[in-house]
Amino acid sequence: MKRRDQSSDRRPVRGEERAREKRRFHKAPHAKPEGGLWLYGLHAVRSALSNPRRFFRRAVLTERAVEELGQKLLARVKHEITDMHGVSRMLPDGAVHQGVALLCEPLPRLELDSVLAVAGAKRRIVLVLDQITDPHNAGAILRTAAAFGVTAIIVQDRHSPPESGVLAKAASGALDIVPIVHVVNVARTLEDLGKRDFWRIALSSDGESALKDVVGTADIALVLGSEGGGIRRLVRERCDVSAFVAIAPAIDSLNVSNAAAIALYELRRN
Amino acid sequence: MKRRDQSSDRRPVRGEERAREKRRFHKAPHAKPEGGLWLYGLHAVRSALSNPRRFFRRAVLTERAVEELGQKLLARVKHEITDMHGVSRMLPDGAVHQGVALLCEPLPRLELDSVLAVAGAKRRIVLVLDQITDPHNAGAILRTAAAFGVTAIIVQDRHSPPESGVLAKAASGALDIVPIVHVVNVARTLEDLGKRDFWRIALSSDGESALKDVVGTADIALVLGSEGGGIRRLVRERCDVSAFVAIAPAIDSLNVSNAAAIALYELRRN
Repeated sequence: MKRRDQSSDRRPVRGEERAREKRRFHKAPHAKPEGGLWLYGLHAVRSALSNPRRFFRRAVLTERAVEELGQKLLARVKHEITDMHGVSRMLPDGAVHQGVALLCEPLPRLELDSVLAVAGAKRRIVLVLDQITDPHNAGAILRTAAAFGVTAIIVQDRHSPPESGVLAKAASGALDIVPIVHVVNVARTLEDLGKRDFWRIALSSDGESALKDVVGTADIALVLGSEGGGIRRLVRERCDVSAFVAIAPAIDSLNVSNAAAIALYELRRN
Repeated sequence: MKRRDQSSDRRPVRGEERAREKRRFHKAPHAKPEGGLWLYGLHAVRSALSNPRRFFRRAVLTERAVEELGQKLLARVKHEITDMHGVSRMLPDGAVHQGVALLCEPLPRLELDSVLAVAGAKRRIVLVLDQITDPHNAGAILRTAAAFGVTAIIVQDRHSPPESGVLAKAASGALDIVPIVHVVNVARTLEDLGKRDFWRIALSSDGESALKDVVGTADIALVLGSEGGGIRRLVRERCDVSAFVAIAPAIDSLNVSNAAAIALYELRRN
Protein backbone atom coordinates (compact mmCIF):
# COMPACT_ATOMS: atom_id res chain seq x y z
CA MET A 1 0.00 0.00 0.00
CA LYS A 2 2.75 2.43 -0.78
CA ARG A 3 4.52 3.62 -3.90
CA ARG A 4 5.44 0.60 -5.89
CA ASP A 5 8.71 1.51 -7.47
CA GLN A 6 10.20 -1.95 -7.43
CA SER A 7 11.61 -3.16 -10.72
CA SER A 8 9.39 -5.33 -12.86
CA ASP A 9 9.37 -6.51 -16.43
CA ARG A 10 6.38 -4.36 -17.19
CA ARG A 11 7.38 -1.11 -15.58
CA PRO A 12 10.72 0.63 -16.08
CA VAL A 13 12.20 2.23 -13.00
CA ARG A 14 14.38 5.26 -12.75
CA GLY A 15 18.00 4.86 -11.61
CA GLU A 16 17.32 6.54 -8.31
CA GLU A 17 14.49 4.20 -7.49
CA ARG A 18 16.50 1.17 -8.48
CA ALA A 19 19.23 2.25 -6.07
CA ARG A 20 16.68 2.69 -3.31
CA GLU A 21 15.24 -0.73 -4.04
CA LYS A 22 18.71 -2.25 -3.82
CA ARG A 23 19.19 -0.80 -0.34
CA ARG A 24 15.81 -2.08 0.70
CA PHE A 25 16.65 -5.53 -0.63
CA HIS A 26 19.71 -5.74 1.56
CA LYS A 27 17.80 -4.58 4.60
CA ALA A 28 14.86 -6.94 4.22
CA PRO A 29 15.77 -9.96 2.10
CA HIS A 30 12.33 -11.54 2.44
CA ALA A 31 10.34 -8.46 1.55
CA LYS A 32 11.19 -8.13 -2.11
CA PRO A 33 13.37 -11.06 -3.18
CA GLU A 34 14.16 -11.07 -6.85
CA GLY A 35 12.31 -7.77 -7.21
CA GLY A 36 8.96 -9.33 -6.38
CA LEU A 37 6.80 -9.91 -3.34
CA TRP A 38 6.17 -13.16 -1.46
CA LEU A 39 2.57 -13.76 -0.45
CA TYR A 40 1.69 -16.75 1.73
CA GLY A 41 -1.23 -18.50 3.38
CA LEU A 42 -4.10 -20.27 1.59
CA HIS A 43 -6.57 -17.36 1.55
CA ALA A 44 -4.02 -14.78 0.40
CA VAL A 45 -2.60 -17.00 -2.35
CA ARG A 46 -5.98 -18.27 -3.56
CA SER A 47 -7.19 -14.73 -3.85
CA ALA A 48 -4.01 -13.55 -5.65
CA LEU A 49 -4.23 -16.44 -8.14
CA SER A 50 -7.87 -15.54 -8.80
CA ASN A 51 -7.09 -11.88 -9.43
CA PRO A 52 -6.77 -11.11 -13.14
CA ARG A 53 -4.85 -7.92 -12.26
CA ARG A 54 -2.11 -9.83 -10.43
CA PHE A 55 1.06 -11.06 -12.16
CA PHE A 56 2.95 -14.05 -10.73
CA ARG A 57 6.45 -15.40 -11.02
CA ARG A 58 6.39 -18.73 -9.23
CA ALA A 59 4.96 -20.63 -6.29
CA VAL A 60 6.34 -23.20 -3.87
CA LEU A 61 3.87 -25.37 -2.06
CA THR A 62 3.18 -28.71 -0.40
CA GLU A 63 1.12 -31.57 -1.86
CA ARG A 64 -1.59 -30.76 0.62
CA ALA A 65 -1.70 -27.10 -0.45
CA VAL A 66 -2.02 -28.31 -4.07
CA GLU A 67 -5.15 -30.21 -3.05
CA GLU A 68 -6.53 -27.17 -1.21
CA LEU A 69 -5.93 -24.74 -4.08
CA GLY A 70 -6.79 -27.07 -6.96
CA GLN A 71 -5.07 -27.63 -10.30
CA LYS A 72 -7.21 -25.08 -12.11
CA LEU A 73 -5.81 -22.12 -10.17
CA LEU A 74 -2.29 -23.52 -10.15
CA ALA A 75 -2.31 -23.80 -13.94
CA ARG A 76 -1.81 -20.03 -13.89
CA VAL A 77 1.63 -20.15 -12.27
CA LYS A 78 4.91 -22.06 -12.51
CA HIS A 79 5.12 -24.03 -9.28
CA GLU A 80 7.30 -26.43 -7.40
CA ILE A 81 6.20 -29.06 -4.87
CA THR A 82 8.17 -29.14 -1.61
CA ASP A 83 7.63 -29.74 2.11
CA MET A 84 6.67 -27.25 4.86
CA HIS A 85 10.32 -26.50 5.51
CA GLY A 86 10.91 -25.73 1.84
CA VAL A 87 8.12 -23.17 1.96
CA SER A 88 9.38 -21.66 5.22
CA ARG A 89 12.81 -21.11 3.67
CA MET A 90 11.31 -18.54 1.29
CA LEU A 91 9.66 -16.49 4.03
CA PRO A 92 10.43 -14.44 7.14
CA ASP A 93 10.72 -16.42 10.37
CA GLY A 94 7.39 -17.30 11.90
CA ALA A 95 5.28 -16.67 8.79
CA VAL A 96 2.15 -18.84 9.07
CA HIS A 97 2.14 -19.99 5.46
CA GLN A 98 -0.09 -23.09 5.54
CA GLY A 99 2.18 -24.77 3.00
CA VAL A 100 2.15 -22.20 0.21
CA ALA A 101 4.17 -19.18 -0.90
CA LEU A 102 3.68 -17.20 -4.09
CA LEU A 103 6.21 -14.84 -5.61
CA CYS A 104 4.38 -12.13 -7.50
CA GLU A 105 4.45 -8.54 -8.65
CA PRO A 106 2.92 -5.78 -6.57
CA LEU A 107 -0.52 -4.79 -7.86
CA PRO A 108 -0.62 -2.14 -10.59
CA ARG A 109 -1.67 1.33 -9.46
CA LEU A 110 -5.33 2.33 -9.69
CA GLU A 111 -6.92 5.71 -10.32
CA LEU A 112 -9.87 6.93 -8.26
CA ASP A 113 -11.88 7.80 -11.39
CA SER A 114 -11.80 4.29 -12.80
CA VAL A 115 -12.54 2.68 -9.44
CA LEU A 116 -15.54 4.91 -8.73
CA ALA A 117 -16.92 4.31 -12.22
CA VAL A 118 -17.89 0.77 -11.23
CA ALA A 119 -21.51 0.93 -10.11
CA GLY A 120 -23.13 -1.43 -7.62
CA ALA A 121 -26.61 -2.12 -6.29
CA LYS A 122 -25.86 -0.55 -2.92
CA ARG A 123 -24.61 2.91 -2.13
CA ARG A 124 -20.88 3.28 -2.53
CA ILE A 125 -18.66 3.33 0.53
CA VAL A 126 -15.10 4.53 0.26
CA LEU A 127 -12.74 4.03 3.18
CA VAL A 128 -10.03 6.65 3.69
CA LEU A 129 -7.11 5.56 5.90
CA ASP A 130 -5.18 8.49 7.34
CA GLN A 131 -1.71 7.34 8.42
CA ILE A 132 -2.63 3.82 9.45
CA THR A 133 0.76 2.16 9.03
CA ASP A 134 0.49 -1.05 11.06
CA PRO A 135 0.17 -3.93 8.54
CA HIS A 136 -1.90 -6.07 10.93
CA ASN A 137 -4.45 -3.30 11.44
CA ALA A 138 -4.46 -2.33 7.76
CA GLY A 139 -4.84 -5.99 6.75
CA ALA A 140 -7.71 -6.55 9.16
CA ILE A 141 -9.41 -3.42 7.81
CA LEU A 142 -9.01 -4.71 4.25
CA ARG A 143 -10.65 -7.99 5.23
CA THR A 144 -13.62 -6.20 6.79
CA ALA A 145 -13.85 -3.85 3.82
CA ALA A 146 -14.21 -6.85 1.51
CA ALA A 147 -16.83 -8.34 3.83
CA PHE A 148 -18.96 -5.18 3.62
CA GLY A 149 -18.53 -4.49 -0.08
CA VAL A 150 -16.41 -1.36 0.12
CA THR A 151 -15.84 0.25 -3.31
CA ALA A 152 -12.28 1.42 -2.62
CA ILE A 153 -9.74 2.05 0.08
CA ILE A 154 -7.83 5.30 -0.25
CA VAL A 155 -4.39 5.66 1.32
CA GLN A 156 -1.75 8.33 1.13
CA ASP A 157 1.48 7.43 -0.70
CA ARG A 158 3.50 8.25 2.37
CA HIS A 159 2.63 6.82 5.77
CA SER A 160 0.74 3.80 4.53
CA PRO A 161 1.91 0.22 5.01
CA PRO A 162 3.71 -1.28 2.01
CA GLU A 163 2.09 -4.18 0.18
CA SER A 164 3.62 -7.14 2.01
CA GLY A 165 3.12 -10.75 2.98
CA VAL A 166 2.12 -9.70 6.51
CA LEU A 167 -0.49 -7.29 5.20
CA ALA A 168 -1.84 -9.84 2.70
CA LYS A 169 -2.03 -12.55 5.38
CA ALA A 170 -3.90 -10.29 7.80
CA ALA A 171 -6.23 -9.33 4.94
CA SER A 172 -7.01 -13.03 4.39
CA GLY A 173 -7.37 -12.60 0.63
CA ALA A 174 -8.90 -9.13 0.63
CA LEU A 175 -5.74 -7.46 -0.70
CA ASP A 176 -6.68 -8.91 -4.10
CA ILE A 177 -10.38 -8.09 -3.73
CA VAL A 178 -10.73 -4.49 -2.55
CA PRO A 179 -9.28 -1.83 -4.89
CA ILE A 180 -6.65 0.30 -3.16
CA VAL A 181 -6.07 3.80 -4.49
CA HIS A 182 -2.86 5.62 -3.57
CA VAL A 183 -3.08 9.39 -3.50
CA VAL A 184 -0.54 12.12 -2.84
CA ASN A 185 -2.78 14.08 -0.51
CA VAL A 186 -5.73 12.63 1.39
CA ALA A 187 -7.22 16.05 2.23
CA ARG A 188 -7.35 17.00 -1.45
CA THR A 189 -8.97 13.67 -2.33
CA LEU A 190 -11.65 14.36 0.27
CA GLU A 191 -12.38 17.68 -1.42
CA ASP A 192 -12.73 15.78 -4.67
CA LEU A 193 -15.07 13.23 -3.07
CA GLY A 194 -17.17 16.10 -1.69
CA LYS A 195 -17.66 17.44 -5.22
CA ARG A 196 -18.83 13.98 -6.21
CA ASP A 197 -21.51 14.21 -3.48
CA PHE A 198 -19.94 11.73 -1.12
CA TRP A 199 -21.01 12.31 2.50
CA ARG A 200 -17.69 12.51 4.35
CA ILE A 201 -17.68 11.09 7.87
CA ALA A 202 -14.65 11.34 10.18
CA LEU A 203 -14.80 8.46 12.69
CA SER A 204 -13.36 9.59 16.00
CA SER A 205 -13.97 8.82 19.67
CA ASP A 206 -14.52 12.55 20.24
CA GLY A 207 -16.92 12.94 17.29
CA GLU A 208 -19.98 15.24 17.43
CA SER A 209 -22.71 12.68 16.77
CA ALA A 210 -23.38 8.98 17.17
CA LEU A 211 -22.54 7.27 13.87
CA LYS A 212 -25.99 5.69 13.56
CA ASP A 213 -27.57 9.17 13.58
CA VAL A 214 -25.56 10.55 10.66
CA VAL A 215 -25.63 7.67 8.19
CA GLY A 216 -27.95 9.36 5.66
CA THR A 217 -28.53 7.84 2.24
CA ALA A 218 -25.77 9.28 0.03
CA ASP A 219 -22.54 7.59 -0.98
CA ILE A 220 -20.13 7.67 1.94
CA ALA A 221 -16.46 8.39 2.49
CA LEU A 222 -15.52 7.08 5.94
CA VAL A 223 -12.25 8.44 7.32
CA LEU A 224 -10.21 6.51 9.90
CA GLY A 225 -7.12 7.75 11.71
CA SER A 226 -4.24 5.92 13.35
CA GLU A 227 -4.65 4.61 16.90
CA GLY A 228 -1.98 6.88 18.23
CA GLY A 229 -2.57 10.15 16.42
CA GLY A 230 -6.15 9.96 15.21
CA ILE A 231 -7.22 11.85 12.09
CA ARG A 232 -5.00 14.82 11.24
CA ARG A 233 -6.67 18.23 11.60
CA LEU A 234 -6.41 19.18 7.93
CA VAL A 235 -8.02 15.89 6.93
CA ARG A 236 -10.78 16.17 9.50
CA GLU A 237 -11.63 19.69 8.33
CA ARG A 238 -12.47 18.28 4.90
CA CYS A 239 -15.22 16.06 6.37
CA ASP A 240 -18.92 16.96 6.57
CA VAL A 241 -19.38 15.48 10.04
CA SER A 242 -17.45 13.69 12.76
CA ALA A 243 -19.03 10.67 14.40
CA PHE A 244 -18.34 8.31 17.27
CA VAL A 245 -19.26 4.77 18.26
CA ALA A 246 -20.51 4.97 21.86
CA ILE A 247 -18.40 2.96 24.32
CA ALA A 248 -18.16 2.58 28.08
CA PRO A 249 -15.88 5.01 29.94
CA ALA A 250 -13.82 2.08 31.28
CA ILE A 251 -11.72 2.02 28.13
CA ASP A 252 -10.15 4.82 26.09
CA SER A 253 -10.94 3.68 22.59
CA LEU A 254 -11.65 0.76 20.30
CA ASN A 255 -8.93 -0.91 18.26
CA VAL A 256 -9.01 0.81 14.86
CA SER A 257 -9.88 -2.35 12.92
CA ASN A 258 -12.73 -3.08 15.34
CA ALA A 259 -13.97 0.50 15.01
CA ALA A 260 -13.84 0.11 11.22
CA ALA A 261 -15.78 -3.16 11.41
CA ILE A 262 -18.51 -1.64 13.56
CA ALA A 263 -18.78 1.45 11.36
CA LEU A 264 -19.03 -0.56 8.12
CA TYR A 265 -21.62 -2.83 9.72
CA GLU A 266 -23.68 0.22 10.74
CA LEU A 267 -23.41 1.76 7.26
CA ARG A 268 -24.62 -1.48 5.64
CA ARG A 269 -27.15 -2.35 8.35
CA ASN A 270 -30.35 -1.30 6.61
CA MET B 1 -6.75 -17.13 30.97
CA LYS B 2 -5.86 -20.66 32.01
CA ARG B 3 -5.31 -22.44 35.29
CA ARG B 4 -3.12 -20.31 37.43
CA ASP B 5 -0.99 -22.76 39.32
CA GLN B 6 2.13 -20.64 39.52
CA SER B 7 3.69 -20.27 42.92
CA SER B 8 2.89 -17.13 44.86
CA ASP B 9 3.32 -15.98 48.42
CA ARG B 10 -0.38 -16.17 49.00
CA ARG B 11 -1.19 -19.51 47.49
CA PRO B 12 0.67 -22.75 48.26
CA VAL B 13 1.26 -25.05 45.32
CA ARG B 14 1.41 -28.79 45.24
CA GLY B 15 4.71 -30.47 44.38
CA GLU B 16 3.46 -31.65 41.02
CA GLU B 17 2.50 -28.16 40.00
CA ARG B 18 5.74 -26.72 41.20
CA ALA B 19 7.61 -29.21 39.02
CA ARG B 20 5.47 -28.27 36.05
CA GLU B 21 6.10 -24.61 36.69
CA LYS B 22 9.83 -25.25 36.79
CA ARG B 23 9.72 -26.84 33.36
CA ARG B 24 7.70 -23.96 32.06
CA PHE B 25 10.15 -21.50 33.53
CA HIS B 26 13.00 -23.05 31.64
CA LYS B 27 11.05 -23.13 28.42
CA ALA B 28 9.83 -19.55 28.52
CA PRO B 29 11.99 -17.43 30.84
CA HIS B 30 9.99 -14.28 30.13
CA ALA B 31 6.55 -15.76 30.68
CA LYS B 32 6.69 -16.41 34.42
CA PRO B 33 9.98 -15.13 35.81
CA GLU B 34 10.26 -15.46 39.56
CA GLY B 35 6.87 -17.19 39.56
CA GLY B 36 5.05 -14.05 38.47
CA LEU B 37 3.89 -12.48 35.25
CA TRP B 38 5.35 -9.47 33.41
CA LEU B 39 2.80 -7.02 32.07
CA TYR B 40 3.93 -4.11 29.90
CA GLY B 41 2.63 -1.10 28.01
CA LEU B 42 1.05 2.01 29.55
CA HIS B 43 -2.59 0.95 29.25
CA ALA B 44 -2.02 -2.57 30.57
CA VAL B 45 0.10 -1.42 33.52
CA ARG B 46 -2.14 1.54 34.43
CA SER B 47 -5.11 -0.76 34.47
CA ALA B 48 -3.32 -3.42 36.55
CA LEU B 49 -2.15 -0.82 39.10
CA SER B 50 -5.74 0.45 39.37
CA ASN B 51 -7.16 -3.02 39.95
CA PRO B 52 -7.71 -3.73 43.67
CA ARG B 53 -7.78 -7.47 42.87
CA ARG B 54 -4.26 -7.45 41.38
CA PHE B 55 -1.12 -8.12 43.47
CA PHE B 56 2.23 -6.71 42.32
CA ARG B 57 5.84 -7.50 43.02
CA ARG B 58 7.82 -4.74 41.34
CA ALA B 59 7.96 -2.44 38.34
CA VAL B 60 10.76 -1.13 36.16
CA LEU B 61 10.09 2.01 34.18
CA THR B 62 11.51 5.12 32.57
CA GLU B 63 11.23 8.67 33.90
CA ARG B 64 8.80 9.41 31.13
CA ALA B 65 6.58 6.47 32.07
CA VAL B 66 6.61 7.74 35.67
CA GLU B 67 5.16 11.02 34.40
CA GLU B 68 2.54 9.19 32.35
CA LEU B 69 1.41 6.91 35.16
CA GLY B 70 1.70 9.39 38.02
CA GLN B 71 3.08 9.01 41.55
CA LYS B 72 -0.29 8.12 43.05
CA LEU B 73 -0.56 4.84 41.15
CA LEU B 74 3.14 4.06 41.54
CA ALA B 75 2.89 4.42 45.32
CA ARG B 76 1.24 0.99 45.19
CA VAL B 77 4.32 -0.85 43.95
CA LYS B 78 8.07 -1.04 44.56
CA HIS B 79 9.66 0.40 41.45
CA GLU B 80 12.98 1.15 39.86
CA ILE B 81 13.76 3.88 37.31
CA THR B 82 15.77 2.77 34.29
CA ASP B 83 16.02 3.46 30.55
CA MET B 84 14.16 1.85 27.64
CA HIS B 85 16.83 -0.82 27.34
CA GLY B 86 16.52 -1.69 31.01
CA VAL B 87 12.80 -2.28 30.53
CA SER B 88 13.35 -4.33 27.36
CA ARG B 89 15.72 -6.64 29.23
CA MET B 90 12.84 -7.89 31.36
CA LEU B 91 10.62 -8.76 28.41
CA PRO B 92 10.47 -11.00 25.34
CA ASP B 93 12.11 -9.59 22.21
CA GLY B 94 9.99 -7.07 20.37
CA ALA B 95 7.59 -6.35 23.23
CA VAL B 96 6.21 -2.83 22.70
CA HIS B 97 6.46 -1.77 26.34
CA GLN B 98 6.33 2.06 26.13
CA GLY B 99 8.87 2.28 28.94
CA VAL B 100 7.16 0.23 31.63
CA ALA B 101 7.06 -3.37 32.85
CA LEU B 102 5.24 -4.65 35.91
CA LEU B 103 5.89 -7.99 37.60
CA CYS B 104 2.69 -9.16 39.21
CA GLU B 105 0.65 -12.16 40.24
CA PRO B 106 -1.93 -13.69 37.94
CA LEU B 107 -5.44 -12.59 38.85
CA PRO B 108 -7.27 -14.67 41.47
CA ARG B 109 -9.93 -17.02 40.12
CA LEU B 110 -13.52 -15.84 39.96
CA GLU B 111 -16.77 -17.77 40.31
CA LEU B 112 -19.68 -17.23 37.93
CA ASP B 113 -22.14 -16.75 40.80
CA SER B 114 -20.31 -13.83 42.32
CA VAL B 115 -19.67 -12.16 38.95
CA LEU B 116 -23.32 -12.40 37.88
CA ALA B 117 -24.49 -11.04 41.23
CA VAL B 118 -23.23 -7.58 40.24
CA ALA B 119 -26.22 -5.78 38.77
CA GLY B 120 -26.04 -2.99 36.23
CA ALA B 121 -28.39 -0.53 34.58
CA LYS B 122 -28.29 -2.35 31.23
CA ARG B 123 -29.07 -5.94 30.47
CA ARG B 124 -26.21 -8.30 31.23
CA ILE B 125 -24.09 -9.66 28.41
CA VAL B 126 -21.82 -12.62 29.00
CA LEU B 127 -19.29 -13.58 26.33
CA VAL B 128 -18.45 -17.27 26.03
CA LEU B 129 -15.20 -18.03 24.16
CA ASP B 130 -15.06 -21.58 22.82
CA GLN B 131 -11.44 -22.55 22.16
CA ILE B 132 -10.17 -19.15 21.13
CA THR B 133 -6.49 -19.60 21.96
CA ASP B 134 -4.75 -16.84 20.00
CA PRO B 135 -3.68 -14.19 22.56
CA HIS B 136 -3.98 -11.33 20.04
CA ASN B 137 -7.57 -12.26 19.20
CA ALA B 138 -8.48 -12.94 22.82
CA GLY B 139 -6.89 -9.66 23.90
CA ALA B 140 -8.71 -7.68 21.22
CA ILE B 141 -11.99 -9.32 22.30
CA LEU B 142 -11.31 -8.36 25.93
CA ARG B 143 -10.76 -4.74 24.89
CA THR B 144 -14.05 -4.65 22.98
CA ALA B 145 -15.84 -6.40 25.83
CA ALA B 146 -14.72 -3.63 28.20
CA ALA B 147 -15.83 -1.03 25.67
CA PHE B 148 -19.35 -2.46 25.56
CA GLY B 149 -19.76 -3.19 29.27
CA VAL B 150 -19.69 -6.98 29.17
CA THR B 151 -20.45 -8.52 32.59
CA ALA B 152 -18.08 -11.47 32.24
CA ILE B 153 -16.04 -13.48 29.79
CA ILE B 154 -16.27 -17.23 30.21
CA VAL B 155 -13.47 -19.47 28.99
CA GLN B 156 -12.75 -23.15 29.37
CA ASP B 157 -9.76 -24.10 31.55
CA ARG B 158 -8.23 -26.01 28.68
CA HIS B 159 -7.82 -24.45 25.24
CA SER B 160 -7.87 -20.85 26.37
CA PRO B 161 -4.90 -18.50 26.14
CA PRO B 162 -2.88 -18.15 29.36
CA GLU B 163 -2.81 -14.79 31.09
CA SER B 164 0.28 -13.22 29.51
CA GLY B 165 1.94 -9.95 28.61
CA VAL B 166 0.90 -10.37 24.97
CA LEU B 167 -2.73 -10.92 25.92
CA ALA B 168 -2.68 -7.97 28.35
CA LYS B 169 -1.08 -5.68 25.75
CA ALA B 170 -3.63 -6.61 23.09
CA ALA B 171 -6.38 -6.05 25.66
CA SER B 172 -5.06 -2.51 26.25
CA GLY B 173 -5.96 -2.57 29.95
CA ALA B 174 -9.15 -4.62 29.67
CA LEU B 175 -7.57 -7.71 31.27
CA ASP B 176 -7.91 -5.88 34.60
CA ILE B 177 -11.38 -4.54 33.83
CA VAL B 178 -13.54 -7.38 32.51
CA PRO B 179 -14.04 -10.33 34.90
CA ILE B 180 -12.84 -13.61 33.38
CA VAL B 181 -14.41 -16.81 34.66
CA HIS B 182 -12.66 -20.13 34.01
CA VAL B 183 -14.92 -23.16 33.79
CA VAL B 184 -14.24 -26.85 33.31
CA ASN B 185 -16.94 -27.33 30.71
CA VAL B 186 -18.41 -24.56 28.57
CA ALA B 187 -21.42 -26.60 27.48
CA ARG B 188 -22.44 -27.21 31.09
CA THR B 189 -22.04 -23.52 31.91
CA LEU B 190 -24.38 -22.69 29.03
CA GLU B 191 -26.99 -25.02 30.54
CA ASP B 192 -26.55 -23.14 33.79
CA LEU B 193 -26.94 -19.78 32.04
CA GLY B 194 -30.11 -21.07 30.37
CA LYS B 195 -31.62 -21.81 33.78
CA ARG B 196 -30.76 -18.24 34.76
CA ASP B 197 -32.85 -17.06 31.77
CA PHE B 198 -29.95 -15.92 29.66
CA TRP B 199 -30.78 -15.92 25.93
CA ARG B 200 -27.95 -17.97 24.43
CA ILE B 201 -26.81 -16.89 20.96
CA ALA B 202 -24.19 -18.82 18.97
CA LEU B 203 -22.50 -16.42 16.55
CA SER B 204 -21.59 -18.26 13.36
CA SER B 205 -21.29 -17.40 9.68
CA ASP B 206 -23.76 -20.23 8.93
CA GLY B 207 -26.25 -19.16 11.61
CA GLU B 208 -30.05 -19.37 11.09
CA SER B 209 -30.96 -15.71 11.56
CA ALA B 210 -29.43 -12.29 11.21
CA LEU B 211 -28.15 -11.22 14.62
CA LYS B 212 -30.17 -7.98 14.62
CA ASP B 213 -33.38 -10.03 14.35
CA VAL B 214 -32.77 -12.20 17.41
CA VAL B 215 -31.49 -9.68 19.95
CA GLY B 216 -34.61 -9.75 22.17
CA THR B 217 -34.62 -8.06 25.57
CA ALA B 218 -33.33 -10.70 28.00
CA ASP B 219 -29.81 -11.03 29.38
CA ILE B 220 -27.56 -12.51 26.71
CA ALA B 221 -24.85 -15.15 26.52
CA LEU B 222 -23.01 -14.66 23.22
CA VAL B 223 -20.90 -17.65 22.13
CA LEU B 224 -17.90 -17.22 19.82
CA GLY B 225 -15.82 -20.03 18.32
CA SER B 226 -12.26 -20.13 17.04
CA GLU B 227 -11.53 -18.92 13.50
CA GLY B 228 -10.42 -22.34 12.38
CA GLY B 229 -12.88 -24.69 14.03
CA GLY B 230 -15.88 -22.52 14.85
CA ILE B 231 -18.12 -23.40 17.79
CA ARG B 232 -18.03 -27.09 18.79
CA ARG B 233 -21.23 -29.02 18.15
CA LEU B 234 -21.91 -29.83 21.80
CA VAL B 235 -21.54 -26.18 22.72
CA ARG B 236 -23.73 -24.96 19.89
CA GLU B 237 -26.47 -27.40 20.86
CA ARG B 238 -26.75 -25.66 24.22
CA CYS B 239 -27.65 -22.35 22.54
CA ASP B 240 -31.19 -21.07 21.95
CA VAL B 241 -30.42 -19.68 18.52
CA SER B 242 -27.56 -19.34 16.04
CA ALA B 243 -27.04 -15.99 14.35
CA PHE B 244 -24.87 -14.49 11.64
CA VAL B 245 -23.59 -11.07 10.66
CA ALA B 246 -24.39 -10.65 6.96
CA ILE B 247 -21.29 -10.20 4.79
CA ALA B 248 -20.51 -10.12 1.08
CA PRO B 249 -19.77 -13.48 -0.60
CA ALA B 250 -16.31 -12.21 -1.64
CA ILE B 251 -14.86 -13.21 1.69
CA ASP B 252 -15.30 -16.34 3.82
CA SER B 253 -15.68 -14.85 7.25
CA LEU B 254 -14.87 -11.96 9.53
CA ASN B 255 -11.91 -11.99 11.87
CA VAL B 256 -13.27 -13.29 15.20
CA SER B 257 -12.44 -10.11 17.13
CA ASN B 258 -14.16 -8.01 14.45
CA ALA B 259 -17.19 -10.31 14.57
CA ALA B 260 -17.26 -9.93 18.35
CA ALA B 261 -17.04 -6.14 18.08
CA ILE B 262 -19.93 -5.98 15.61
CA ALA B 263 -22.08 -8.34 17.68
CA LEU B 264 -21.50 -6.42 20.94
CA TYR B 265 -22.24 -3.16 19.14
CA GLU B 266 -25.52 -4.60 17.84
CA LEU B 267 -26.50 -5.94 21.28
CA ARG B 268 -25.88 -2.52 22.86
CA ARG B 269 -27.22 -0.49 19.94
CA ASN B 270 -30.62 0.46 21.34
